[in-house]
Amino acid sequence: MRMNQHDDLPMTIDALRARYLDGSLTPAQLVERIAARTAGDDPHRVWIRALTRDEMMRYADALAQHDPATLPLYGVPFAIKDNIDVAGVPTTAGCPAYAYTPERSAPVVERLIAAGAIPVGKTNLDQFATGLSGQRSPYGACRNALDPEYASGGSSSGSAVAVALGLAAFSLGTDTAGSGRVPAAFHGLVGLKPTKGVLSTMGVVPACRSLDCVSIFAPSANDAQRVFECARGVTEGDPYARAWQPGGREGGSLAGVRFGVPRAAQLNFYGDASYAAAFDAALAKLRAAGAELVEIDIEPFLATARLLYEGPFVAERLAAIRPFFEAQPEALHAVTREIIGGAARWSAADAFAAFDRLAALRMESERVWPHVDALVTPTSPTTSTVAELEADPIGVNARFGYYTNFVNLLDLSALAVPAGECTTGRHAGKPFGITFVARAHDDAYLLGLARAWLGEHGCPAPRDAKDDPAPTVRVAVVGAHLSGEPLNGQLTGRGARLVESTTTANAYRLYALPQARPQDPAKPGLVRVNEGGTAIEVEVWEMPTAAFGSFVAAIPAPLGIGTLELASGSTALGFLCESAALANAPDISAYGGWRAYRAAQSQSQTQTERIGA
Amino acid sequence: MRMNQHDDLPMTIDALRARYLDGSLTPAQLVERIAARTAGDDPHRVWIRALTRDEMMRYADALAQHDPATLPLYGVPFAIKDNIDVAGVPTTAGCPAYAYTPERSAPVVERLIAAGAIPVGKTNLDQFATGLSGQRSPYGACRNALDPEYASGGSSSGSAVAVALGLAAFSLGTDTAGSGRVPAAFHGLVGLKPTKGVLSTMGVVPACRSLDCVSIFAPSANDAQRVFECARGVTEGDPYARAWQPGGREGGSLAGVRFGVPRAAQLNFYGDASYAAAFDAALAKLRAAGAELVEIDIEPFLATARLLYEGPFVAERLAAIRPFFEAQPEALHAVTREIIGGAARWSAADAFAAFDRLAALRMESERVWPHVDALVTPTSPTTSTVAELEADPIGVNARFGYYTNFVNLLDLSALAVPAGECTTGRHAGKPFGITFVARAHDDAYLLGLARAWLGEHGCPAPRDAKDDPAPTVRVAVVGAHLSGEPLNGQLTGRGARLVESTTTANAYRLYALPQARPQDPAKPGLVRVNEGGTAIEVEVWEMPTAAFGSFVAAIPAPLGIGTLELASGSTALGFLCESAALANAPDISAYGGWRAYRAAQSQSQTQTERIGA
Repeated sequence: MRMNQHDDLPMTIDALRARYLDGSLTPAQLVERIAARTAGDDPHRVWIRALTRDEMMRYADALAQHDPATLPLYGVPFAIKDNIDVAGVPTTAGCPAYAYTPERSAPVVERLIAAGAIPVGKTNLDQFATGLSGQRSPYGACRNALDPEYASGGSSSGSAVAVALGLAAFSLGTDTAGSGRVPAAFHGLVGLKPTKGVLSTMGVVPACRSLDCVSIFAPSANDAQRVFECARGVTEGDPYARAWQPGGREGGSLAGVRFGVPRAAQLNFYGDASYAAAFDAALAKLRAAGAELVEIDIEPFLATARLLYEGPFVAERLAAIRPFFEAQPEALHAVTREIIGGAARWSAADAFAAFDRLAALRMESERVWPHVDALVTPTSPTTSTVAELEADPIGVNARFGYYTNFVNLLDLSALAVPAGECTTGRHAGKPFGITFVARAHDDAYLLGLARAWLGEHGCPAPRDAKDDPAPTVRVAVVGAHLSGEPLNGQLTGRGARLVESTTTANAYRLYALPQARPQDPAKPGLVRVNEGGTAIEVEVWEMPTAAFGSFVAAIPAPLGIGTLELASGSTALGFLCESAALANAPDISAYGGWRAYRAAQSQSQTQTERIGA
Repeated sequence: MRMNQHDDLPMTIDALRARYLDGSLTPAQLVERIAARTAGDDPHRVWIRALTRDEMMRYADALAQHDPATLPLYGVPFAIKDNIDVAGVPTTAGCPAYAYTPERSAPVVERLIAAGAIPVGKTNLDQFATGLSGQRSPYGACRNALDPEYASGGSSSGSAVAVALGLAAFSLGTDTAGSGRVPAAFHGLVGLKPTKGVLSTMGVVPACRSLDCVSIFAPSANDAQRVFECARGVTEGDPYARAWQPGGREGGSLAGVRFGVPRAAQLNFYGDASYAAAFDAALAKLRAAGAELVEIDIEPFLATARLLYEGPFVAERLAAIRPFFEAQPEALHAVTREIIGGAARWSAADAFAAFDRLAALRMESERVWPHVDALVTPTSPTTSTVAELEADPIGVNARFGYYTNFVNLLDLSALAVPAGECTTGRHAGKPFGITFVARAHDDAYLLGLARAWLGEHGCPAPRDAKDDPAPTVRVAVVGAHLSGEPLNGQLTGRGARLVESTTTANAYRLYALPQARPQDPAKPGLVRVNEGGTAIEVEVWEMPTAAFGSFVAAIPAPLGIGTLELASGSTALGFLCESAALANAPDISAYGGWRAYRAAQSQSQTQTERIGA
C-alpha cells in the first residue's frame, strides 16, 4: 500500500475510506498529520504555499456533518497547482509579482471539496505553466521525488511530486501541451489530460486559454477516474465549458484493442537507448496482452506539435497575461520571458494562417481513427538530468513534448500511465511512461485501458447515473428472431447481443401461427397460461433501449412485447401473442421450442418429398 | 409567374420542371435563349464572365441521358459568384490579377450540376468578397436590378442581380458577414446563409476561411430549400466541412413562434424612417400571424459584430491572400486594399485576445435561445444610393452589416426574406427585407418560417430520406396513460403528443386488473376477442421512436405492447394484456372505456361514503 513516507497514512482513496469507515482515522487526525509534515522542510520545492493546519481543519470540520460512506472523496487530501484558485490562498502562477488572493475556489476545486476532498497546498510549477521541465520557478526548481538530480517534469511539477511523495492522495495540474503528462511519466504516476472543457478552467490562470485543461495526477487509474467523476461538470459562465459525453466504449481489456503506434521513422527518442528499449518492452507487453499494434503515420500529429511551439500559438500565452507582461517584463523568469516575449514577432494574419493550417492537420489526423482504438506513444521521448536542463533550458525542455504537444490542439483525450522502469542504458532504474491517446470524450475508455494495463481491478466507486453506458433492455425471443432464424438481423442490426440461451418458466404454451402471407417467415405465438404451462426455449438479447422502440414498432399483430418469466425466475421483455389469434393454431409446446418444432417439420417434409420422389 | 424579362422563360424550379415534363422546353432550347441574352449588353454589370453558348450546351447535352422527372434541378439555370470555381472558366474573385482557371468545379457547384442544374455565368462581386455594397469591383460597380441609382448590395452583388433580372433561377453567393443577405434584401429575394460548413467551401476563394459560407439566392423559400438540399454534403478533404444535422423542428407556421426582437434602444436604422416603418409593419404582420415577439438584449450579438470589423478578424482576410497581397498590392481595388491592409496593425496576441472575447460573447449570446425560437431583425438597417456610397464607401457600407456581421462568428444560420416595400420616407417603393436567425443546423426551420411568412405552400420537392423529421410511432393508450391519468407523464415526458381520441374496432373486451400493490395505479387490461367484442375508448399518441423503447421496457406484466385495430380500420401500437391474467378480473367493457368505468366507481364510492356518514 502507498503510504506517506513519514508516517502510516495510507494515500489511496480506498485505503483512506476504509480507515474512515472503521473509525481508525478522522479528517481532523489526517489534517494534523499532514500539517506536521508540510510545516517542515520542503527540500523538493513542492509547495509554493502549503495550507496551514487551521485552513485545512476548516475543510475537515465541514465533513463532520457527513457520513464517510456518502461522500466519494471523504477526507481525501489533494494538492492544487498554484495556477488554480483556492479561496483565501494566493494564486501566483509561479510569479510572485502576479499573485492575487481569490475569494472563491475554482469551480473544479469546489466540486472536489463538495465531494469530501481536503485541499492541502498550492504546488510549484513552471511559471505561467510554460514549460515541461519543472525548473522554471522563482520558488526554486522542483525536485524529482525519485531522484533529485533528475528533471521533475513540468509545468505541473509540484502536483506530481506531492503525490509521488505521498503528501496527497491526488492532485490537480494543468495541461496545455503535456504539463499533466510529462511529470506523471517522470514519477510513475497516472496523469489524466481529460477532454478539453470537461473540467472547468474558470479560476485557472490561463496559459493558452483555448487549449488549457485541468489535469489529474493519481497513483492509479481507479483513483484518477474517481477524481475525474467528481471534478467534471459544466459551470455556468464558463465560455470553454463542454459537457462530457460518455462514449459508451469500455476499455476493460487489452485483448483485441487496436493501438496505433508511430512508424519506426517517426519514433524519436533523441538517442536515448533506455527509453527506446523501454518503449519496445511496453509494446511487447501490450502485444502479449492480446492488443493489436497498427503502425500509423503520425506526421499530421507531429506537424501539429510543431505548430504549437514554432508558430504563433505562443501569442495566446502573451494574450493571457499581456497587461502584466508589458508592465513588468522584469518580473518574469528569464526563460519564460524569452519564450512569451517571442510572441511579438507573430502577426494576426500569422495566427489566422496557423488556424487554417491546424484545421487541415486536424482533418488529416482524423483519418487514423477508423483504423485504431487509441494511440500509444512514449509519454516523453527521453528524460534528463537537472544539469542538462540548466545547460539548455529551452532545447531539452522542447524534447519532452514530442509526443504530447499535439494532443490539446487536436482536441484529443490522453492518459499517461506508468510502464515500469528503464532496464538498460544510462537511465536504467528510472521510471518510464506511455500515453494512451484517443478522441475527445474517450476519457473513460482510456482509464479502462489503463486499468487493464496496470492490472487494477474494476472501479468500485459509485458512478453518476448519467455516466452509465447507454441503457439497454433484455429481450427474450422465441421464434423467427432466434440466432440463425430469418428475423435475427432485426436484433443484430440494432446492436443487440446474445446474453443467454435459456427457457421460460414452466408457465407458457407455444403455438405455430398461421402465416398471413406465404412470403412471411413462419412464426410461433407464446402465451402464458395459468395451468398446464411448460418451459419454452428462448434466447435473451441485450439491446440499446434507444433502438428498442423501432424494434417493437415493427412487430405485426397478433404478436406483441410484454414481460416473460424465465426459468431462473427473472424476467425479460419478450414476445407475447394475443390469445384470440390461437383459435386454429396448433399447440407445439411439446417440442420445447421453435427450433425443435421446425427441425421436426423439415424432417417430415423431407421424408414426404422422398416418398413423393 | 417570374419570367425572364426578355422572353417567356419561366424562372422558377417548378415552372421550368413543368415545361420540361410537358415537352415544351428542352435544356438545349433554354441554353440558346440564355446565350442570346448574355451575349448582349450587361448594363447592370452582372457578369464577370458569362458562360458561352457552347460551354452551357455541354451541361445541357449531359442531361439528354436523364429523365426530367428524376433530377431535382433538371435544366435549372444558375449563376455563380466569381469567387467560386467553375471548371474551365476563370475565377477572379473580382481581381483580374488574381485570376486562375480551375480544372474542376467547386464541390458545391458539382453537386448542383449533378442534380441537373446548368451554370450560366460567373457574377460580379465586391473584390475578394470584402464589402456589402456591390461597388468595389474593377469590373464595374454592380447595378441594382430594380433601380440602378441604388446600391445593389454586396459582396454577392451580381448573383442577386442575376436572379432579380430573371437571368438565372437561382444563384450561389458567399457570405462571411452578410454578403449573401444584404443583396437579397435590396432585391426582394430570399437569401440563405446556411449553417457554416454544410455547403462545402472547397474551391472558393477564401475571405475569412473560418467564417465563409456558400449562400443561396432564390425567388422563393421553396426554391432556396431545394437548392440547399441538393448543394449540401460533406466533401472528403474539406477541413471546414460539417455534416448537416436536421434539427427536427418544423417551421411551417408562424402561430406561436417566439421571435426575439432587439430592444428598441438597440434597433438602429441610422435615421432611415422608411426602413424603421417597414420593420414596424413587418413585426405587426408577424404578430397578426400569431407569432409572439419577445424583446431581447442583443448587445452580445452587436459586440460580436463590432469584433468582426473593428478587431483583428480582418487579418483573416489578409491571411487568405497574403502572398498575392504582398506581391501586388497595387492590383487591389483601392477600398479593398485599405481595408485588408489594415490587418497589419494587429498582432497574433490581439487575435488570441479576440478569440477569447468571442468565446465569452458566444456564451452570453446563447442565453437568448431558451427564450426564443428565432431572432427577427431588419436584414439591413438602411439602404443607400450609389452616390452616397461613392461619397463614403467604407462608412455607408459598414451600416449595412449592423444586423448581419455577428451571424457567422456566432455559428448561426440566417435567412433573409423579402418583407414588401417601404411605404413612407425617402426610400418609399424600395424593397425591405427581414432576416430570421437561429442556431446552427436550423436552416430547414428558418425555411419553413419563410414559407409561412411569404405565404408559400409546402415544399413538394422530393426530400432526402435522411432529412425527414425524427421518426415517430403511434401508440394507443387505454388506461392509466390517458390524458389526466396518473401515468400520462410517461408519454409527455418522452415528447409524445396526442393526435387522436377514438375507439378500438368492435373486437375487444376491457377488464379491470387486480392491483399488484396498493400504491400502483389501477389499470385495465385490453384483450382482442374473436366474438362479442366491442369498441373501447383509446387515445392515440405520437411518440419519437427513439423514446418508445424505454416506454415499452417500463411496462409491467401482464401488460404488453402489440398492435391494436382502431375504429377507423387503421392500426396503432397499443396496450395488450395477457389473457392468463384475466381469470379473476371483472369485465368492464360495458362502460366503453377506462375513464367511464373509473368515474362510475368513484361515484359509487362517494355514495357509499355518504351512506356511511
